[in-house]
Amino acid sequence: MFATGVTIVTTKGDDGVAVGMTANSFNSVSLDPPMVLWSLAKSARSLPAFSAAPYWNVHVLASDQDALSNRFARAGEDKFAGLPLEDCATGMPLLPGCSARFQCRSVFQYEGGDHIIFVGEVIAYDRAELAPLLYVSGAYAIAAHKGEPPKAAAAPQVGAFSEDMLGYLLGRAHYQFMARFRPMLAEKRISDPEFFLLSLLSVRQPMSLAEIAAHMADTGFETSEAVLDAACARGLLRRDSGGYSLSPAGSDAILHILAAAKAVEADLGGRIGALQGTALRQLLKTLVGTTDRGLPSLWA
Amino acid sequence: MFATGVTIVTTKGDDGVAVGMTANSFNSVSLDPPMVLWSLAKSARSLPAFSAAPYWNVHVLASDQDALSNRFARAGEDKFAGLPLEDCATGMPLLPGCSARFQCRSVFQYEGGDHIIFVGEVIAYDRAELAPLLYVSGAYAIAAHKGEPPKAAAAPQVGAFSEDMLGYLLGRAHYQFMARFRPMLAEKRISDPEFFLLSLLSVRQPMSLAEIAAHMADTGFETSEAVLDAACARGLLRRDSGGYSLSPAGSDAILHILAAAKAVEADLGGRIGALQGTALRQLLKTLVGTTDRGLPSLWA
Repeated sequence: MFATGVTIVTTKGDDGVAVGMTANSFNSVSLDPPMVLWSLAKSARSLPAFSAAPYWNVHVLASDQDALSNRFARAGEDKFAGLPLEDCATGMPLLPGCSARFQCRSVFQYEGGDHIIFVGEVIAYDRAELAPLLYVSGAYAIAAHKGEPPKAAAAPQVGAFSEDMLGYLLGRAHYQFMARFRPMLAEKRISDPEFFLLSLLSVRQPMSLAEIAAHMADTGFETSEAVLDAACARGLLRRDSGGYSLSPAGSDAILHILAAAKAVEADLGGRIGALQGTALRQLLKTLVGTTDRGLPSLWA
Repeated sequence: MFATGVTIVTTKGDDGVAVGMTANSFNSVSLDPPMVLWSLAKSARSLPAFSAAPYWNVHVLASDQDALSNRFARAGEDKFAGLPLEDCATGMPLLPGCSARFQCRSVFQYEGGDHIIFVGEVIAYDRAELAPLLYVSGAYAIAAHKGEPPKAAAAPQVGAFSEDMLGYLLGRAHYQFMARFRPMLAEKRISDPEFFLLSLLSVRQPMSLAEIAAHMADTGFETSEAVLDAACARGLLRRDSGGYSLSPAGSDAILHILAAAKAVEADLGGRIGALQGTALRQLLKTLVGTTDRGLPSLWA
């Protein structure tokens, strides 16, 4: 139940061979002097190397490094095979792409049951603006800052929708996002269903009526030959033997709308922060995957 | 950059007075025997009490316990004032409402720069199904499991919407949610805008045309006197001098739809898991707060 980051600790044995292992027992100990600790099982094959090593490096893994974590958590194989390594002053193996790295001088080794507690003094460190990988309740996770504590929720009303319902929150978040660039849709006299049609065909075209209808089905907007032909008559689409495509005017309109949507996206990303943006996208993808009724990927 | 859970460690001084402090330096050390560690600043006022104590308790805080964390992170006040405490065999203070708790016998105290490292043997523990509180990059956070690694994303197309855009993900998640209970709307011959109208008035009624229009604005659905009067004519709403309210038939319809929506909600909650559900709601609230254009709370 205790959440941790995930680290890989590396050193070199007397023979100069790089050794390393995944550890989530890492933590800070002291500010002055700067010291950190982690624990290693007495049964670990790398114990002799770490016990004798004057230095070791701790790598705090970024959220996309779970494969690297798995690699260094398994015994046996050559964990460093094919990995790019960076130079560092102590000569110990330094892995790229991490959220933070600590180069340490080994200072204390303490008894800790079936583990040895290694305490090191930090002699150099660096960090990158990369969201850290987490390990929580037995699985990898990502973090989302809590933000402001929610206002005291009103007592739930019987027989009414609550502001804590996922369906309400999804709808409101979606519509408030849409509202940010709907003035541009209004200016171009493009309705919501036309916007979805143009977006769809911007990703793949031409598409048949049946394909378009499949992708539009969940929106609740009517998608019939009459609707599509009306969009053709409005000059947004064109129809030929291959199906429906964007007209030059439709293509131009969706390019402008896309630019506006990207600006809204960038603005919101800045407001909620990178950590939240990453977590929200990940969770929405999980939810979309969970509620998908077998729609073929548009992007496949 | 290293993510941690948040704990409160408690003990009693020789005088029998409870002491406690927030620590995120906690970690597990050993499985056999079960041992954990945490670090305490040599300058801490509670150091004498912890140094002399034969036992201490570690509380892994749940995601709603940030106020408790803040309380035990500040020096000076009586941190335990007014707090309910539970009994435990060692007699040390035990706080309720946590994700996990460890009752420990103090075993080792090690030198660690400006801190002392306390190692304890776990003599009892319990846990609850409560998402843990995190501390990441200097702020409280909650965790969301990573789930399946996303399929290799197709190379982004120039001039097309991407499957990584927040706007796309919000829309798709919203519409796929709606699609789960739209069959019930169809059966009752209720359109999407009528569904939103009924939902709105289920929370608060009567409402004036202007109030309803303000709450419906971002959906893009037309809200005019003609539209509302049409809903009255359809028997869903009624209108009197106070504004618009649900008719008995409208009230009955929204109750049934609400039950269906709650069933979808519960089903999705089970599929994505409690940890993800909590994180997703929190993030959507943050996003909704960020993009809100000043809509008065329906529930206030």
